Formats: sequence, C-alpha cells, structure tokens
Amino acid sequence: MNRKKIVTFGEVMLRLSTSSFSRFTQASQFVALYAGSEANVAASLSLFQISAEHVTRFPNNDLGKAAVQSLNKYGVETKHIIYGDERMGVYFLENGAMQRSSKIIYDRFDSAFAHIKKGMIDWDDVLNDASWFHWTGITPAISQGAADVCMEALLVARKKGITISGDINYRRNLWQYGKSADQVMPGLIEYTDIIIGGTTDIENSLGVKASSYEKACVQAMKKCPAVKKITSTHRESISSSHNKISARLWNGKELLNSKEYDLTHIVDRVGAGDAYMAGLIYGWVKGKTDQDTIEFAIAASALKHGMEGDVNLCTVDEVETLVKGENIGKLLR
Amino acid sequence: MNRKKIVTFGEVMLRLSTSSFSRFTQASQFVALYAGSEANVAASLSLFQISAEHVTRFPNNDLGKAAVQSLNKYGVETKHIIYGDERMGVYFLENGAMQRSSKIIYDRFDSAFAHIKKGMIDWDDVLNDASWFHWTGITPAISQGAADVCMEALLVARKKGITISGDINYRRNLWQYGKSADQVMPGLIEYTDIIIGGTTDIENSLGVKASSYEKACVQAMKKCPAVKKITSTHRESISSSHNKISARLWNGKELLNSKEYDLTHIVDRVGAGDAYMAGLIYGWVKGKTDQDTIEFAIAASALKHGMEGDVNLCTVDEVETLVKGENIGKLLR
Amino acid sequence: MNRKKIVTFGEVMLRLSTSSFSRFTQASQFVALYAGSEANVAASLSLFQISAEHVTRFPNNDLGKAAVQSLNKYGVETKHIIYGDERMGVYFLENGAMQRSSKIIYDRFDSAFAHIKKGMIDWDDVLNDASWFHWTGITPAISQGAADVCMEALLVARKKGITISGDINYRRNLWQYGKSADQVMPGLIEYTDIIIGGTTDIENSLGVKASSYEKACVQAMKKCPAVKKITSTHRESISSSHNKISARLWNGKELLNSKEYDLTHIVDRVGAGDAYMAGLIYGWVKGKTDQDTIEFAIAASALKHGMEGDVNLCTVDEVETLVKGENIGKLLR
Amino acid sequence: MNRKKIVTFGEVMLRLSTSSFSRFTQASQFVALYAGSEANVAASLSLFQISAEHVTRFPNNDLGKAAVQSLNKYGVETKHIIYGDERMGVYFLENGAMQRSSKIIYDRFDSAFAHIKKGMIDWDDVLNDASWFHWTGITPAISQGAADVCMEALLVARKKGITISGDINYRRNLWQYGKSADQVMPGLIEYTDIIIGGTTDIENSLGVKASSYEKACVQAMKKCPAVKKITSTHRESISSSHNKISARLWNGKELLNSKEYDLTHIVDRVGAGDAYMAGLIYGWVKGKTDQDTIEFAIAASALKHGMEGDVNLCTVDEVETLVKGENIGKLLR
Amino acid sequence: MNRKKIVTFGEVMLRLSTSSFSRFTQASQFVALYAGSEANVAASLSLFQISAEHVTRFPNNDLGKAAVQSLNKYGVETKHIIYGDERMGVYFLENGAMQRSSKIIYDRFDSAFAHIKKGMIDWDDVLNDASWFHWTGITPAISQGAADVCMEALLVARKKGITISGDINYRRNLWQYGKSADQVMPGLIEYTDIIIGGTTDIENSLGVKASSYEKACVQAMKKCPAVKKITSTHRESISSSHNKISARLWNGKELLNSKEYDLTHIVDRVGAGDAYMAGLIYGWVKGKTDQDTIEFAIAASALKHGMEGDVNLCTVDEVETLVKGENIGKLLR
Amino acid sequence: MNRKKIVTFGEVMLRLSTSSFSRFTQASQFVALYAGSEANVAASLSLFQISAEHVTRFPNNDLGKAAVQSLNKYGVETKHIIYGDERMGVYFLENGAMQRSSKIIYDRFDSAFAHIKKGMIDWDDVLNDASWFHWTGITPAISQGAADVCMEALLVARKKGITISGDINYRRNLWQYGKSADQVMPGLIEYTDIIIGGTTDIENSLGVKASSYEKACVQAMKKCPAVKKITSTHRESISSSHNKISARLWNGKELLNSKEYDLTHIVDRVGAGDAYMAGLIYGWVKGKTDQDTIEFAIAASALKHGMEGDVNLCTVDEVETLVKGENIGKLLR
Repeated sequence: MNRKKIVTFGEVMLRLSTSSFSRFTQASQFVALYAGSEANVAASLSLFQISAEHVTRFPNNDLGKAAVQSLNKYGVETKHIIYGDERMGVYFLENGAMQRSSKIIYDRFDSAFAHIKKGMIDWDDVLNDASWFHWTGITPAISQGAADVCMEALLVARKKGITISGDINYRRNLWQYGKSADQVMPGLIEYTDIIIGGTTDIENSLGVKASSYEKACVQAMKKCPAVKKITSTHRESISSSHNKISARLWNGKELLNSKEYDLTHIVDRVGAGDAYMAGLIYGWVKGKTDQDTIEFAIAASALKHGMEGDVNLCTVDEVETLVKGENIGKLLR
Repeated sequence: MNRKKIVTFGEVMLRLSTSSFSRFTQASQFVALYAGSEANVAASLSLFQISAEHVTRFPNNDLGKAAVQSLNKYGVETKHIIYGDERMGVYFLENGAMQRSSKIIYDRFDSAFAHIKKGMIDWDDVLNDASWFHWTGITPAISQGAADVCMEALLVARKKGITISGDINYRRNLWQYGKSADQVMPGLIEYTDIIIGGTTDIENSLGVKASSYEKACVQAMKKCPAVKKITSTHRESISSSHNKISARLWNGKELLNSKEYDLTHIVDRVGAGDAYMAGLIYGWVKGKTDQDTIEFAIAASALKHGMEGDVNLCTVDEVETLVKGENIGKLLR
Repeated sequence: MNRKKIVTFGEVMLRLSTSSFSRFTQASQFVALYAGSEANVAASLSLFQISAEHVTRFPNNDLGKAAVQSLNKYGVETKHIIYGDERMGVYFLENGAMQRSSKIIYDRFDSAFAHIKKGMIDWDDVLNDASWFHWTGITPAISQGAADVCMEALLVARKKGITISGDINYRRNLWQYGKSADQVMPGLIEYTDIIIGGTTDIENSLGVKASSYEKACVQAMKKCPAVKKITSTHRESISSSHNKISARLWNGKELLNSKEYDLTHIVDRVGAGDAYMAGLIYGWVKGKTDQDTIEFAIAASALKHGMEGDVNLCTVDEVETLVKGENIGKLLR
Repeated sequence: MNRKKIVTFGEVMLRLSTSSFSRFTQASQFVALYAGSEANVAASLSLFQISAEHVTRFPNNDLGKAAVQSLNKYGVETKHIIYGDERMGVYFLENGAMQRSSKIIYDRFDSAFAHIKKGMIDWDDVLNDASWFHWTGITPAISQGAADVCMEALLVARKKGITISGDINYRRNLWQYGKSADQVMPGLIEYTDIIIGGTTDIENSLGVKASSYEKACVQAMKKCPAVKKITSTHRESISSSHNKISARLWNGKELLNSKEYDLTHIVDRVGAGDAYMAGLIYGWVKGKTDQDTIEFAIAASALKHGMEGDVNLCTVDEVETLVKGENIGKLLR
Repeated sequence: MNRKKIVTFGEVMLRLSTSSFSRFTQASQFVALYAGSEANVAASLSLFQISAEHVTRFPNNDLGKAAVQSLNKYGVETKHIIYGDERMGVYFLENGAMQRSSKIIYDRFDSAFAHIKKGMIDWDDVLNDASWFHWTGITPAISQGAADVCMEALLVARKKGITISGDINYRRNLWQYGKSADQVMPGLIEYTDIIIGGTTDIENSLGVKASSYEKACVQAMKKCPAVKKITSTHRESISSSHNKISARLWNGKELLNSKEYDLTHIVDRVGAGDAYMAGLIYGWVKGKTDQDTIEFAIAASALKHGMEGDVNLCTVDEVETLVKGENIGKLLR
Repeated sequence: MNRKKIVTFGEVMLRLSTSSFSRFTQASQFVALYAGSEANVAASLSLFQISAEHVTRFPNNDLGKAAVQSLNKYGVETKHIIYGDERMGVYFLENGAMQRSSKIIYDRFDSAFAHIKKGMIDWDDVLNDASWFHWTGITPAISQGAADVCMEALLVARKKGITISGDINYRRNLWQYGKSADQVMPGLIEYTDIIIGGTTDIENSLGVKASSYEKACVQAMKKCPAVKKITSTHRESISSSHNKISARLWNGKELLNSKEYDLTHIVDRVGAGDAYMAGLIYGWVKGKTDQDTIEFAIAASALKHGMEGDVNLCTVDEVETLVKGENIGKLLR
C-alpha cells in the first residue's frame, strides 16, 4: 500500500441491472451493486494496492450500510462518510445487445448526497494524509450543495498542495438545480491539475469551441492555466456488443496516442471511463511517463469491458500483462 | 366477468425484495414486482373474475411501462392511467424469519403519483360504468395533490351512487406534506360506505378514543353517518414465520367474528390486508351475508400469506374450498 | 392506440428453453414463456401501440390461465379465447452456440388448439371492429379443425373487407393429419392479400416451381390473384451466433430490397419472422411506402435477435432509431 | 450391490415444478427432473446399494436421453428401455404452503409409454437375473397396451418364481381408455405377492367394501389368495407444510403399526409412497421382520419429505439412524 | 467505534453450501461464503460497531483475496493477515430439514493456515492497541504450528493485560497431527479469562469428570485459576428445523440462566455459537452485568438461526429489541 | 454400444466455476461439475455409444458419491472405482472474456487419487474385456503412486494386446513429488501406441529438441518405437472469446492437417483437448482413415467450445453433421 492516500468524492448509487440481456419489462429481478463514478476510481485504485478513501453522504438506513460494506469490500476507506435522512440514489441499467442500445434510468434526485451542504465534511481532516484528490463533473451537476462542497474540497486540497484530477463527464440531463455547466465548471477546473474530457466535454464546460481535440486542449489550458494535462478515451461503437477504444493525452507539448483495443464481446461497458481514470492515477503516482500512463490506463479500461459491474476488478499485474500483449486469450493454470 | 367494474385508485410502486431470508446487506439481487395497496385489491378482484380498473400516475419510462404490464397481466384495466416526468416510487422488502422482524424501506417520495394534481383524472369518465370505488388512507398521506384527487373521486362516485370503500391503513411515517391524518381523513371517510380499520386506525384518523373495537366503531359511525360497516383483521404475531389471523365486522348492529387461521409457515405477509379487502368486495358484490363475506375475505387473506408478492393469486374456488375447510394440505392431482 | 384492431389467430404454446447455452441433457431447469407465431405478431403490434387481439383455444387449467396472463401483459386483448379439456401445446428450445445448431422439440400434438372445431369461434363478433386479420401456415398444418376454423375466419374477414395477411411458414414436420400443404394452403391463400414466404414456402404450398424469388412471386400471384404483395426475410447463417438478415418484397411491379443487418452476437433468433410480420403490419397500417415498410420490419426483426423470448419487445421509437442508423451501440442515459 | 436385481416397470415423466412456493401463473421457470412412481422405487433401491433396473418406453429424442441419464445417475440399469416416436409424458407441480394445497397437472396422454404394446419388451431376458418385480396401478390405468405389457411381465415373473409387489395407487383421473380399475386390477393383483394400498385403493380396485383396514385386507386376500401382505402409509394432513405419517401392515395374521413421524416443515411430499415401497423391498430383501421392515420403510418415507424431487436420496445408514431415533436435528461434522 | 480493538485469530475457510434443502448429490451449484469460528466473532462485533481485527494466514491466490474482501466488507481489519503458497481450507455444508440432519464435510487439511509457524505473526504489533483477544479450540487442533502461534499470542496478550476468551469447541475429528486435546488445551486455557464450553468440552479438554455443569465449571476453575467465567449455550434439537436454545454462565459464584428461545423455522444454524461469543464480548466490553450479557448473547445467537451464513448480521438495536421482547414478528415499515 | 470397452484412468475433480463472466472475487456461488481429463474422454465416448469405463480413486464421502453419479449419468461404467479417506481434488475456474484470460486454481494436492498405490487396482480384471486404454501425462505428474499405478496398467494392457493412447498434457505446475516429466514419461510412452502432444509436450516429456512438429514426431518415434501416431490440436488465441483450432497428425509417413474452425463466441474451452481425444478414439475404433479421424475429432473439439463443462455432450450425428459442414447455425425443428 502507498503511504499517502487518494481521496475521491461523489455520489454512490444502488445500481440495479437486469440480468444478461433482459429488458426492463422482462426483469423479474435486478442484480444489485453499489457504484458511482468517483468511488469506482477509488475501488480500482485500492485493488491496485494504492490506498484510497471515498467521501460521500449516504442515507442512514440498511441501503446506506450495504453501500459502505461494498466500498469496504474493495478496501476503500469509508471513515469520513456522513449520513442523512434522505434516500439512496438509484440507477437502473438495461444492457444492450448488438444494434440495441444499453439504457440507464437515473433515479438519483433528492438523494442523501444531493442534500450535502457546505461545512458537513471536515476537509482539513479528510485530506490530511492525502496526495491526490479526484472529483468529476457529475457532482457539481447534482445540487448547489454538492457543487459547494466540491469547491470546499478543491480549496483545501490546493492549499495542501495535493494533486487534483477532475473528470468533466458532462451529462446534459443533470444540471437541473438552476445552474448550467459553463457557469460552475470553470471555477472548479481552475483548481484542477489534470482534466479528463473529450472535445464536447471541454466545449460544454469551458465554453470554448475548437476544430480538433488538440486545439480544444490548448484553449482549455489558456482559460485554466493550472491544468497541466488533458486526456480522454476515444470509443468507436460498432454495436452494443462490439466497440474499439483508445486514449489520447495532451500534456501541453504533444498529443500522445495509445494503442487501440478491439472489444469484440462486451460484457458491461459502464465504468470504463472510471477504470481509465484509476489507471491514470496509478501510472502517475508510480512515476510512469505520460505515454506509459495512458497505455496502462487504456488497458485497464479495455479489461473493464469484460466484467460485470462498474468497477475494474483487475490487478496491476493483469493490466501490465495486457499492456505487454501477453497471455491474451490463454487459460492460466 | 361482472358487468360493472370496481375502480381502485392509488400509488403502485416497484417492490424490490431480497430472496428468501436474505438481509439487505446480503442482497446481490432483488426480486422485482409492482405493487400498491389499492392495485393489489384490483388484481385480486380481477383474478376473482370481477372486472377491475386501477387509476394511478406513472413515470413516463420503462419502469412505468413494466408496472402497467404487470397490472395488465392480472387482467386489470389500465386505460385511465396517466403519466408524468417524475420517478417511480420504490419499496425495499426484507423478509424476516422467526424472531427477526420483516423490514420495509419506503422510497416513494417525489414519485409521479405524489405529483398528481386536481383535474388530471377525468373521474366522470373513469367511473362511468363502475359500481364500486376503493381508496386507502395511504393516498391522502402522500401529498396534497393525491389527497385532493382522492376527494375529487369520492365526490364523483357519491354523485353516481357508487359504493365506496376505504382502508384507513394509518402509517405514521407518511403524512409529511404538512397535514396530519386527523385533519384530512374525516373529510374523506364522510363519503365512504365501508371502512377497514382497527381501533388504532380509527382513533388516529377520526380523533376518537374508545375502550373496545365495538365502541370505536360506534363512535366512528356517529362521526361519519355514511359509514355502514367497519371491519378489520386481527393478527397475533408469534413470530415472523407464524401468525394467527381472524376478522371482525361491525355492521351497526352486531360485531361478527370470523374463524381464525393458524399461519404456521408464512411465505410473505405483505398484501394480506389487501387480499382481505378484495375478499370483502367480492363477497358483497356477490350478495353474500356479512358473516359469509368476512369468512371469504379472511380465508383469502390467510391464503395470501402462502405466496410471494403483494397480490393474492387464488381463485374464488380456492378460497371457497378453504372456507369449507376442504382439501387442506392435500395434493390435488 | 389505433381505433381498429388487428386480429391474429393461432396456437400459443408453453415455451420451455434451457438457460444460456445449456443443452437439453444439462437442463436442471427450463425458462418458461408462452409463445406462438401469430400471438407474437399481436404482442409486438400491441407494444407498437396498435390495438391487437389474439384468438386461440387453451386448456382450461392453470397453464391456460398463465398463457392468457402472458398475452394480457403485452396488452393483447384475449376476450374471445375459448377453453377446452385438452392439453397445452409445449415446445422445448435449446439455444445453439457457434457451429452447434439450435434445436426445437415440438410437443403440440393433441393440444386444446388442435381440437378446435368449426363453429366454436364467433368470427362475426371477433372481427366486428377489426381492420386486419393475420394467420400463418402453421394453423392449417395442425389439424383439420384448425384448418377449418382458419378458413371460417378468412371468409368472414373477406366479407367484412378486412385486410388479410398470411405467413406461409412451411414446416415439413407438421401436416400429420392426412392432408398436405399443397392440398390446403392454396384455398387459404386465395383469400389473402399479403403473403410472407420464401421461394421454398411458395413452392411447397402453391405447387409452383421457379428459378428466382421474383418468378415464384409472379407465379403465386397468377395462381392467387387476391395476393397483392409477397415478401420474406433472407437469412445468411454464418453460425448460430452470427447471422445476416435482409428483406425483399414483390409488390407486383418491382422487387424491393432492404438494408442488411449484421447480427454478430445473437441472443435468441426464435420469433424473428414474427417480428418482421408485425413490422410490416405496422408500416402499412401507418401508411408507409412498401420500401419504408420493409425497412421498418427488417429493423424490427434484427432487434428481436438481441432479446430472449419469441416477442419483439421494442417500441416504434427504438425501431425507427435503428432504421435511421442512430444510437447504435450507445449507452442511453 | 446385491447379486439379484429388482426390476421396476412404468412410465417416467419430465417433472416440471415451480421454484419454492411460486404458483403456476408466477413461474418464469420450472425445475426439471425425471420421475415416475416405479422408477422412483428403483432409484431409491439403487441408492440403498440394491441393484435395480427400470423398464419403460421413451421418446427417441433429447428428453428421452435426459431421462435415461437421470436414471443412470442413480445407478439404475436402463439397458432394456425401448424407444418410440411419441412424446415424453410431463407433469407440472405447484408446491402448496400452509392452507394452500399442492397441485399437479398431468400431461402424460399419448406418451411413448402409453403406446407400448405387447411383445415390445423381452420379459424373459429382462427378468433373467431378477429376484423382485414391482409394478403400480398407474401403469394399467394409462392404456390397454400398458396394461397388457404389465400382465406379460407378471406372467413371466410368476413363472420364474420372482417376488411381485404392486402399489395399487388408484387415480380416478387416469383410466380413460375405456376400462375401469375394477375390470383390470383384479387380474393383475392375482399374481402379486405384496400389495400397497389403503382402504379406498383396495375398494376401488378389487370391488370390496369394508368397515376397517384390516377387514379390507382380509377380503382382498380372500379374492386374491396369492397376496401375502398388504400395507399402506397413513397420512394426517394438518396443512401442506405439516403432515404426520405412519404405516400399517396386514400379514394375514396381525395388523402391525409403525411409529408415527411428525413432518413439520415439508419440502416436497411427492414420491413419499415410492420411498415407502423402496423401504419395504429393502427390508424384505435383507430379511428383516415385517415390523422392522415397515419401521425402516416409514422412516425412509418420512425423510423423503425433507428433500426436493420424487426420489428418496437417503442411504441405508441415514434411514437406520432415524429408525433408532439418533442424530435427529444434529449437525454432523 | 470503540477505541480499543478486539483481536481474533483462526482459520477462515471457503464455505460451500448447497442451496435451500438440496443434498450434496443434487447440488449443481454451491453458495460461496468465507467463514471461520473466530472470524465470525470479529465480523459480528464489527457490525455491533466494536472495532475488530482478524489474524490468519491465507493462500496467496484469488480465493485468499476474496476471503480478505469478505472480512473487509464487514469492517473487520485485515492488515496483519499473512499469506503462503498452500491452499484455502474449504468446508461443504448440506442443510438438513426436519428429521434429516445437516452435514458438514471439512476439507481444511494442509491449508495455508495449517502451515502457520511460530514467528510468522508479530503479535506485539498486532496486540498493540487491543483490549481483547479471542481464540478457539479449533486452532490448536489443526496443526502444531497453529497451536504454537496461538500460545505465542496468549503470552503476548497476557503480558499486555488484555482480556482473553477461548471457545473450547471440541471436535473429535480434528486433532490429527499427533497430539490430543487434553495434552494441549490445558496449557492454553491456563492463560484464558473466559471460557466457552459445555460439560463435554470441559471434560475432553481439561480431563475432568463431573456430574453437572456447575461442578465441571468448578473443577475447571480449580485446574486453571485464571479462568473467571465459564459459559455455554444449551441446545434442544427437536429437528433440523426446530431447536430451542438458552445459555448458562458460571461466574465462580452462581450459575446464571438465560431466557430460552424457541427457534421454529431454522434457516441456518452454523455460527450460532460464534454469534453467542460476539454477544458476550459486546456485553462485557459495554459493561453489562453477567446476566444482561448472556441475555444479549443468547438473543444474538437466536437471531443468527434466521439468516444464511456463519455471521450474525444483526445490529445491537436488533438484538436489544429481541432481549426486550419487542417487535417480534412485526413488519417494520 | 460396442462390445469391447474403452478404459480410462485418472483423477476426477470437483470443478467449481464462477457463473458467466464473474471473477473469483465476485463469486457468490460456484457451478459444480465433476471432471478430469481422462474421465472427460470416457464420458464423450459413452455419449458416442462406445462403452467406456473410468477407473479412479475417490474419497469415501458424499462428494465421491456425487462424482460417481456424475459419471454414471453419462453412462460411464464405474464399478472398479476404489475409495479412500482422503479428500476430493478440486479445481476452481474463472472464465475469461475478450482480452482477459481464463484462470484455473488447482486444489488437488493430497487427494484420494494422489494417494493411490500399486496393487490397489486389479488391472487384470479391469482390462479383461477392454480394447483400448487411455492415460494422460497428468496422472504420473500427481504422485509416485499414481505414476506407478499408471505403469501397472500399461504393462497389463500391453500384455493383453490392448491399444494404448496417451495424452502428454505437460503441466509445469504439477510434478511436485520429486520427479520430473522427462524422468518418468519416456517409460510410459514406451508402451503407448498413440500420443497426443504438441511440440513443447514432446520436448518436455521426451527430452528431444526439434525445429518443426514433424521433426519432433520423427524423433519421438525413434525414441519410442511403439508409438505409431502422434497428433495434436493447434490453437490460435485471438482472445478468450475467439480462437481458431485445427489438428495435425503424423502417422510415421505423412503429416495430415484438418480443417480449421473459427470459434467466434467461446462458451467454455476447458476439455476441448479431451473432446479431441474422444473423437480420435471413436474414429479409429470405427475404422475411419487417419484423415477422417482427425476431421471427426477436431469437429468434436470445436463443438465442445460451445457448451459449459469439461465434457463434449454432442452425439456422433452432431459431429458428423459439422464435418460435412451441414446445418451450421440452423434452427433444427
């Protein structure tokens, strides 16, 4: 385990997915997992043997308890999680097949996390022995309170000199509390060292317009000079069952591209971006070069597509083996 | 099928229960059904070959669709159901075993049904060919809008001379929108012919205090002269796995008592009151005496304890056979 | 919902399939659904918001009840279904994988439907408010009674000016009651406006021989002048897991061809022809051109391959989206 | 293993039961097993280390194959089983709970076994190294052919001096082929040494009338002097979940009674009579006294109630331990 | 959470149980959990909000990882767990029903834990901030190494003044490495403050003989003066489905008896003794009297019988509610 | 069935696999089957209607019983199996997906089979009516006893003029008892007529070095002149989900190559080599040419990839149909 921990902050929901390729109207049962973009990053890092802590707010009931146990299972520290009377956010997932798209119904409105308020988290205590803080654009999109608490965290992290990463993760259907992404996101990105986002994410959250990824990155860095690296995955969707993914990274000097993976029999693509994020943090924490970091991260993301759930359950060894192109399709005895 | 239909009104939720005796924190999946106190009555009546329609408001998404299909499956008419943008109410159920209690976590706040408003339902059209309207005290406890729409329905039903039944179903944890049961319920009970409620239900919703069930009934009828019959089940809980139930009915003249059933291996007790209600409606619609009606209804309720889900799936024949005490424990080939 | 309903007529069986890729001898359980070629069409139409009614004969037992509930679930009207003492037809399905073929064991002999007799169905009443009647060549292949009742329906439908479609669906293993397809089918096709059938179907049921699909259609229309359109899907089977499908239609003037879909990860191909049929009826009822109709229908059929069961559970929107080539492989949030 | 085998003859069906307490209309899957009264006896004997062979006729398809494999699994010899083109008999089982009865829907008409005909089985070869032949009253009730083949077997068995047992197992709903039980059964019982049957069974199959079990036995033996022992279980049904059973035996001299077992949490009562029969054969083959034999057999029958499926899976040791009253409710490590 | 932690030490196995009442030979799958007598105590304490750590040795493979994650899920600290090349111990469980006993097949020989050796655990570090150490008689029965490491721990714990509890848990089938219980146990009990054991346990491990529980306790304390309390549960086994349990405690002065619980529908009795142990530690850590402690502990043990798995998943509130006799069999909404 | 049986010898393990694509740490249950390389061959042959017997040593407990029943189910003779006190070997399987490899954790050390000793099996009796004996290189790698018993069998088989086949199946992780493959294998191969092995297998077990498969075969035959044929499958692993396989055979004169199969949606690849072996034995026993034999065998192996479990469940007809390239991807009704 690393000495200094990675801290992530964001909502964790009950994920209810139909089994195999069952449609919502066919579902006589739902598979239950607990997941959230930022917590998925913490879980993957913990499985990479990097100590990680997740901060969130849960309902004070058995579902909140189950969610905490689920984080504990992966080894994620949960001691700063707070509790309230509201509900657990939920999302329902129907896995697509071939030409049929996958569908998510979010039911996260008015959750315990959405009711988080400034001052509820003692960020000074939380970030005491942290070396990295990770947030995503989902959090400020949920409620004013969540946006405020995210900003609180960024200010403390900055003061402590902690590396900050932010996954823009722009979602049109959130941002219902009266503010838009371009009103809130620039203020947060300003304090962020590493940004995950595609061209559209950057455009929507920073109000820039660009003819290429590289140009979008250049403009974003001009607007937010603290940002040192911008990266994103690139996905080609042949069908729900078959995608190709690769990664690219702008480090202010050059645009690096990763190897592309052909994902021919997708099991579950949810959380692939979070697996990428965890891979990035792992790479940089371990002192890898930018190129090696995105190769590690995109291999992690590729592997995530072959397992059920939001969390990449692979070990560092398993990811490194794929980076080296070894053992693919073997039966390891 | 009967010529004239029974109309029920109320929320239908997604019911998510853990399998067999699994606790919430053990649940890797939830069994999914759609249920609600009033819809359970409609479903049971439809399986009794009494035509029944349920009126509610659903979210305009695949969960709403699945809920409608679930009602259709039982033969319940759904053509007057309306749709909105809000969420599906949910309830989570953990079945108890022996000394461990069963637990329900309600997550119905802010549902599409809670957002129902006066004028959304054309009650004149809905109740056109109806002979019976059934409501419960859950509806006015959910939101001002739901209470208002319930009252709308009662006024139209009264004008059309339709029999009205109401199950008081007092639940302390509802009634969060600023009104209390004793402020709202008397106005609704005033228009109701038949009331289901135990002593506590009557006390809490009509503000009376009585030393016996009979006396509570007498006082309730004095307060609400339209009420002609008051009835309830009586449950003795030896453990989560073993209960005894019987019924009693005050018809203004005498207190009738039913046979008691010994429920020694309970599968699922949720919906047992709704099964009782459907049995009552069936009995009276078919012209049974009060005594025969409660005997039929309590037998229906007893049988409900032996099957999973909120709905009593038994036929009239199966209930009648139990009333006669025949075939108990037999293997019917 | 459309004002005028589509009526379908045919046997509904209990479908018992092994889970995932389990072989019959491995099966410790069977997934239970209720399905039949014509009822599958009604179910898909009902999910397309076209009102549909299915007419059949069921055993008067709990399996017959379950089958009715299954149709009701999709919104299919079932009020003219009749009941008898005989058994429920059953079919067992083993899904193939790669080079291994899928297998069906039919066990429908002597079913309640096979015992249907002339005069049992009041077709005048059934077809009163219908605009379309659909039958398949499976029905006259089951028993003399079924063939007779099918002819009864066609005569009444014709008199009422209702559009009639027939899916030839030639199956060598049926036709066990002493008549062959070419003795019975021409009489039925004579009253049919739209025929679904490939070259072999046409040859076997109309006794023609032709060197191309177009020529077979021309000859069929010469033999049965009422027929205005002949169409079929074309399937290329690379393996049980990978097929390609497209459609073609002869409308008396030209041979139209649809787009081809590459079905790379088939979940369940049973019912794909019925999904195509429902798509056709939808297209024509909605006034689409022939070309747009087969594009809609083949997209519906393609989507069917990605879900378990005989019934295409997709909505009109989902099919139209595929026709437009949008959202393929996306995660819809 | 014993040197000389026990031969049983009768239909084996595909048993399709709903899971736990699910009703037929709730069943989204059925648990699949293969079972038949006589084969259940053979299976239990084989698990008692008594060599056993079952003779039947199966359809020549994968279900027939699966049924054979299922018998083989228990160690039952299947080499004289014959095959035909007809269907596999099926029975559907819904397990009751508490006051709700269990239900069986038989779907065995026109099965491969029903089409068995005289001369199809080479009984001389089958019974060559047999010491016991067992039949039940179900077989002659299925079809004239089945009755004829049963009689063939009895004549050969008698000639070879093999002990013959017959379980009357009277079922009103069978006997549909034009003969009644009292026309056929006496001829078969005439050649039988040991009869299993309650008072009603004896009355219906031998046309006697008696005021007590003992008197019925006396009369039966008068009518069929070959019969040396008559025995049956006695079941008190408190509910579907709770029964009491005991056994009684008339050996021509005295009426013996067994210990009674209180079956308070029944898992599956189907096959309990067959478990009793296997216990009897085991007892007598091993030279136990009549009293010890019925004690062993009723203990075997009691244990059967605690496991799913028609077959008693207990070993001789497990049965003997219960007879001695040891280890009841213990956790054996 | 308590400031000072409880430390437990012992083997954790992969528990593979058949579903519901399936026998081993019927099992087409096994439910997988990770469990061990001492770890079960730690898990229950952690769910009681008492900080707990478990020390063991696991194989360095994915099963070892899964076991650690399973402990983490309950909140049990796992940082001092060590790893080796050997195998994961396994136990197979078949749940009995009624007269049929439950069965366990242990397959723990040669496990990573059995290969633990003196010096592998840094007990000084482990017990640094501990207030309680718990061991059981299973550990010294497994191997000389395990016995040695247990003694190491006791010596360090004693030096640090930590309370020590030991559950004798005598199992005849263990003790295969050349030593017998009475050679090893007295040396360990000598350092133990609180002993769990019935009369037989005490006799077998301390070589005493006594005519009553009280007398056995008195003799045990004479032999091992460090022991201050001896307690055990008393179980009456009516059947596998129905037991009664109570507790008794000798504190050197008087024999206290607890309330008896009637366990009428047992779900899973494995781990009931560990639930009792955790209840005892909770009671004493929280300063309850001996009488209140055994009441709390036996209520915890009773509740354990109503859930699947070795671990009591109840909260302190749930146990206290049962102690007070409240809410039994209620549906908590 | 063939008159003369095929005898196989080797360990049978409990196979515990995670469901679908679940990882070990996700597994809340394991699918249980019984399998072993040599027994898989016997099972497949038995399903090909070739009489087969398997010889092994099992623990004398319910798992041993279940394993025997599993072999019996396939029709494999088990009468010479012997029993001991030790444990059942186990292997855990995690199925890979796409770039993620499949993993097996063997837990077979110290099993009942590993403790087999010379003289325990009466090979003279076992091989009395045998025409073929099959062994694999796994057996001599397990323990000295297993290697000795394998040699015993070879000597008796040779004396009786029985054809002997051996699958080298070199596994580096076995061979832990102090001997290496090249010390033991040559002695066994010396008595073997037909060898299955790739270049690496041959090199590791016979200590040869060769630049091509053909040259390795030539050298192997020079070393072991009894060997008449050497064959192996060739697998190209594109991913865990997609492989290509073909076969090659050196018969001393020419190197034959089979058709290649494209396995695009692998369900379970374990046992594919055993399916190949069974196909070879079938081909040669039936007098096919070498070319036809490897075509049959590789088709059998290809089909195995499309079903769960170690055993190829296909019939001869199904394999022959694939050899002919017929019905691929069809729906057989």
